[in-house]
Amino acid sequence: MINVVQIGVGPLGQKIVNYALDRKSIEIVGAVDLDPRKVGQDLGELCTTVPLGVTVKETLEEAVGDRDVDVAVVATLSSIEDIEEQITDIATAGLDIVSTCEELSYPWETQPEIAKRIDEACEKQGVTCLGTGVNPGFLMDYLPSVLSSVCQEVERIKVTRVQDASIRRIPFQQKIGAGLTEKQFEQQEKNGTLRHVGLPESVHMIAKALNWTLDRVEETLDPVLATADILSGYKEIGQGHPSGVEQYGRGFVDGKEKITLHFRAAVGEEEAYDKVEIIGTPTFSSTIEGGINGDIATSAITVNAIPSVTKARAGLKTMLEVPVPSCFSEV
Amino acid sequence: MINVVQIGVGPLGQKIVNYALDRKSIEIVGAVDLDPRKVGQDLGELCTTVPLGVTVKETLEEAVGDRDVDVAVVATLSSIEDIEEQITDIATAGLDIVSTCEELSYPWETQPEIAKRIDEACEKQGVTCLGTGVNPGFLMDYLPSVLSSVCQEVERIKVTRVQDASIRRIPFQQKIGAGLTEKQFEQQEKNGTLRHVGLPESVHMIAKALNWTLDRVEETLDPVLATADILSGYKEIGQGHPSGVEQYGRGFVDGKEKITLHFRAAVGEEEAYDKVEIIGTPTFSSTIEGGINGDIATSAITVNAIPSVTKARAGLKTMLEVPVPSCFSEV
Repeated sequence: MINVVQIGVGPLGQKIVNYALDRKSIEIVGAVDLDPRKVGQDLGELCTTVPLGVTVKETLEEAVGDRDVDVAVVATLSSIEDIEEQITDIATAGLDIVSTCEELSYPWETQPEIAKRIDEACEKQGVTCLGTGVNPGFLMDYLPSVLSSVCQEVERIKVTRVQDASIRRIPFQQKIGAGLTEKQFEQQEKNGTLRHVGLPESVHMIAKALNWTLDRVEETLDPVLATADILSGYKEIGQGHPSGVEQYGRGFVDGKEKITLHFRAAVGEEEAYDKVEIIGTPTFSSTIEGGINGDIATSAITVNAIPSVTKARAGLKTMLEVPVPSCFSEV
Repeated sequence: MINVVQIGVGPLGQKIVNYALDRKSIEIVGAVDLDPRKVGQDLGELCTTVPLGVTVKETLEEAVGDRDVDVAVVATLSSIEDIEEQITDIATAGLDIVSTCEELSYPWETQPEIAKRIDEACEKQGVTCLGTGVNPGFLMDYLPSVLSSVCQEVERIKVTRVQDASIRRIPFQQKIGAGLTEKQFEQQEKNGTLRHVGLPESVHMIAKALNWTLDRVEETLDPVLATADILSGYKEIGQGHPSGVEQYGRGFVDGKEKITLHFRAAVGEEEAYDKVEIIGTPTFSSTIEGGINGDIATSAITVNAIPSVTKARAGLKTMLEVPVPSCFSEV
């Protein structure tokens, strides 16, 4: 049995708890959230399942108490800068960590100093910290790295993730700017609220896997503009208005584009898919028609990675270094 | 620099050497083969490349000499029973091992006693032993396990590998029984020379990844019969005659088929592909159109796994436990 404390009980944290409750080998023994409306509530009731007898606390110390806790699942923030103290506190308390923090998935190039401090805190206590999720953490970095294992040579890697947001939750449609005016879109882009976080981290993870030294990583973001009136989303979008977001992450070696990550999520996309293209020996592509549902997948891989971190070496690790999470779906 | 000794310099071993020579971080410092026609030859000349100043020797001891060798790549036999002594001798000599031996990919259920002895020999010397290859080792076991990482639940897994043998080497076409009479096919099947080795191992590896306890594993083999005259292979195959082989590996839990591995290789197959289907939450499939070339892929993943075993914990490990091999294609 692996005893887990859940840090962050927002929408994603709640999904993680709901999924983890199904696993026979995992027990959720504590929960932490800063929101005073959540503190003091029963975790099960908060996650709209049965009462669990686990009360949401304000601090890790209170949540752990005198229990023997193995792993903390952290679903709080996307920025590693914002999350550093939280992570090192948990490491210092002697818990392994699985986190959905996007920037934690591969911070060795983007935030090397923070990465080093987290690594050291983990090493000191003999615990493991892993950042994961569907993307970054799987589709645009881990999976292409795995697929390259059967290649004698890789010349270039391209990963495309196209999602039809029509069928996703309204907050997701809003998050990608669907239904905004172009001006609103620009404004939100400046605020950084539209950005899908993690493309540079994924580029760096692939480069690490392939042993490539990048001289430059680029990231771009643009609106997808509706080519006709769209009625399939949560609100009508007129022709020419933003229906979603299109992002590229690119990695260059000697000025040559070697890694291209293309992320496009928009209301009314006709075809959704996740595709990895490897140009090399051999050249091949792997396609998941319809794509992977991000909400399900992120909570799934986060929970699935819990046994992996308990088996991994100490330190800040990435998906490239831990045992395959896989779905340990007890039957 | 990782110093490697190549054990077995048959067709596959030669391919491995040729590929490894391209890697800047690997140096082949020795080679072993039992064939007296190969012993004494320069490894490079034997592999039809430049002379390497590495002479093929008859024993590991001679090949290693007083050199500091890190890893042995073993491309000799398919049967773990036949290879056990070879492997334990190498482990006792203190070398990490990567092997293409099919049964070594996941021997914990099929040959638990041999697996345990190899594991103990490795643990004792602090070295790692890994069985890998394209299949078993990647397409029908490791890849589906990796893909299941984004699932909250897996109800069933089906993997299909269909290959058009028309474009493969003649020995491969012969190996799958293309062009035999049905009687010859039956005879060769009895001899065990037609069998693609590894399906039960792949079934067990998936079960391990998913934490399933199987009550039964089945393996079947049948000829593919030409539905029309076929001219695309190395010889003409009349309608109704064997054009290749069709195998199934199946894993059952509580009498229910949960894992289905379908391997079909025949001359004249119209569509070649590798497909992983996961029925669960979410249900999805991942397809590599055209499939992965087995000859290239096996030598590639074998070499790519060399750095992985040097980083892995001691013991007999499987692809589920080592760091992602990936193609470390220095640029």
